[in-house]
Amino acid sequence: MDLVDAVLAGDRLSLARLLTQVENDTPAGRAALDRLFPHTGRAHLVGVTGSPGTGKSSLVNQLAQVYRHPGDEQTAQRVAILAIDPSSPFSGGALLGDRVRMRDLAGDAGVFIRSMASRGAVGGLARSTAAAVHVLDAAGFDLVLIETVGAGQSEVDIARLAHTTLVVEAPGMGDDIQAIKAGILEIADILVVNKADHPGVENTERALRAMLEMGHPAHKGLGPAADSHEFWLPPVLRSIASTGEGAAEIVSAIRAHAVYLRTSGEWRRREYERLQNTLETLIQQALVSRWREGVSEEKIENCVAQLCERTTTPYQAMKELI
Amino acid sequence: MDLVDAVLAGDRLSLARLLTQVENDTPAGRAALDRLFPHTGRAHLVGVTGSPGTGKSSLVNQLAQVYRHPGDEQTAQRVAILAIDPSSPFSGGALLGDRVRMRDLAGDAGVFIRSMASRGAVGGLARSTAAAVHVLDAAGFDLVLIETVGAGQSEVDIARLAHTTLVVEAPGMGDDIQAIKAGILEIADILVVNKADHPGVENTERALRAMLEMGHPAHKGLGPAADSHEFWLPPVLRSIASTGEGAAEIVSAIRAHAVYLRTSGEWRRREYERLQNTLETLIQQALVSRWREGVSEEKIENCVAQLCERTTTPYQAMKELI
Repeated sequence: MDLVDAVLAGDRLSLARLLTQVENDTPAGRAALDRLFPHTGRAHLVGVTGSPGTGKSSLVNQLAQVYRHPGDEQTAQRVAILAIDPSSPFSGGALLGDRVRMRDLAGDAGVFIRSMASRGAVGGLARSTAAAVHVLDAAGFDLVLIETVGAGQSEVDIARLAHTTLVVEAPGMGDDIQAIKAGILEIADILVVNKADHPGVENTERALRAMLEMGHPAHKGLGPAADSHEFWLPPVLRSIASTGEGAAEIVSAIRAHAVYLRTSGEWRRREYERLQNTLETLIQQALVSRWREGVSEEKIENCVAQLCERTTTPYQAMKELI
Repeated sequence: MDLVDAVLAGDRLSLARLLTQVENDTPAGRAALDRLFPHTGRAHLVGVTGSPGTGKSSLVNQLAQVYRHPGDEQTAQRVAILAIDPSSPFSGGALLGDRVRMRDLAGDAGVFIRSMASRGAVGGLARSTAAAVHVLDAAGFDLVLIETVGAGQSEVDIARLAHTTLVVEAPGMGDDIQAIKAGILEIADILVVNKADHPGVENTERALRAMLEMGHPAHKGLGPAADSHEFWLPPVLRSIASTGEGAAEIVSAIRAHAVYLRTSGEWRRREYERLQNTLETLIQQALVSRWREGVSEEKIENCVAQLCERTTTPYQAMKELI
């Protein structure tokens, strides 16, 4: 049984190995991705983003617990957590967070946790994240929780990848112009005010709702509607990740969003866009590596040296190399 | 006199126009970049990054004031501020921050402020930021302060672009594992604890120093050395951006870092890397657009539709399209 078969059969060690190959963009990893592809398309991809210090990781752990131990009516679902740490090309930040998180969820065979830094990833974090999501989807996880830190380009990229995006805020951090970025709110399908036991929670909620009204005119004057099949108004939910309070309600909202996506045709639209991106990235990579084969490293170095001396321009150098 | 000549002659309106062309990656913008290139390489590029709510923008304003109104011994320098807002492909966040900032620096012909969102930028924010920096450098600004929000991939990209990178923290935000990212610290040439009049400033400083000792073994047991010409130990400085306290000391550290860069050969190394990146991005773009000319939109759409139905794989589709 080779690595791909073992992953499809549910072997965790093989899954970890294959993810490493895929992250490092090895030929074997690429071939495996292609073989796994027909098995993808079933997982619900949920992005969780927010500034550092909002308690995002703890919240993700609590959400995983709810999926693993739901109420009487529902069966437990298999959950993969992909923690993206774009600030770690340099050191072991991702591993550090990983160990803290492991304490809560260790020993549950229905949970798989993976931290990813951009270190070692050829072609950037967006590519390797998309590839890892493919593997986890094919491996049969019902949910893939993709956790990202920050408020930058990477979050927007993740939102493009996920079916449902949660934006997490915390009281006292998100009340000024800079912290509540309208742009980040507009990628939110569900808003969470975590650390709801801290002072200032009402202010944060009020600020979020005010921003939502600017971004989503339909939100104005309406209550917390999260069950419409026609359009989706991002609900604002409270949670206390340290105790697990509010996690069940967030999971309900994620499920309601999945129903909305399916009935509105939005699921299909997001799938199309995601696969289009995957294909375009692959084509770009292939074009660059084909070009690299036909040009000597020395010639490239000469051109860069000339650029440093300002004896050529980037455009002229490009013309010469291509 | 055309736009490029006008920019070189110091005309602000032409500069604003050219930056728009360059951001939108128009043919005229690309041609202008090439003509401006021989005039680049003089500005000191300083990146300023940190989480939302750290008071980063106010600090950048205060730094600009110091460069404009230095002590007796130094002459005023021309400063450009490039505020990067990767969360704004969707709405007017950048413009909002811009108006707040304008109040402080308006009317000074030696200061030029530009906000950039990824909206409208073909090829991503990294490309358009690099291009805007080229234009501002050629336009004769001594300092280009590149301000970014967040703690993600974009910060690492900016650090690659800048000669000197400031990482800004604030008390009470950066004291847990998540907020103080070792990776972000490792791109820092200078660390600033802003809002130093808030409680908890000692804790934040202590946490930063502890992380520095992990990342920079040389830092251990040494005092705040910021004047070595052999190697550079990132100093941890305090500031209160609302009053301007500490801004002069930060500017001194930035100047000391420039001396270090020049004497150690690191300036030349960073220049080389930056120009190599510029060239590679340009080549990648050219390869993709040349490929697009030879393939029909319909054929691409067919491939993506087949991917959605899982009747082909990304690799097979790439093979067919290339």
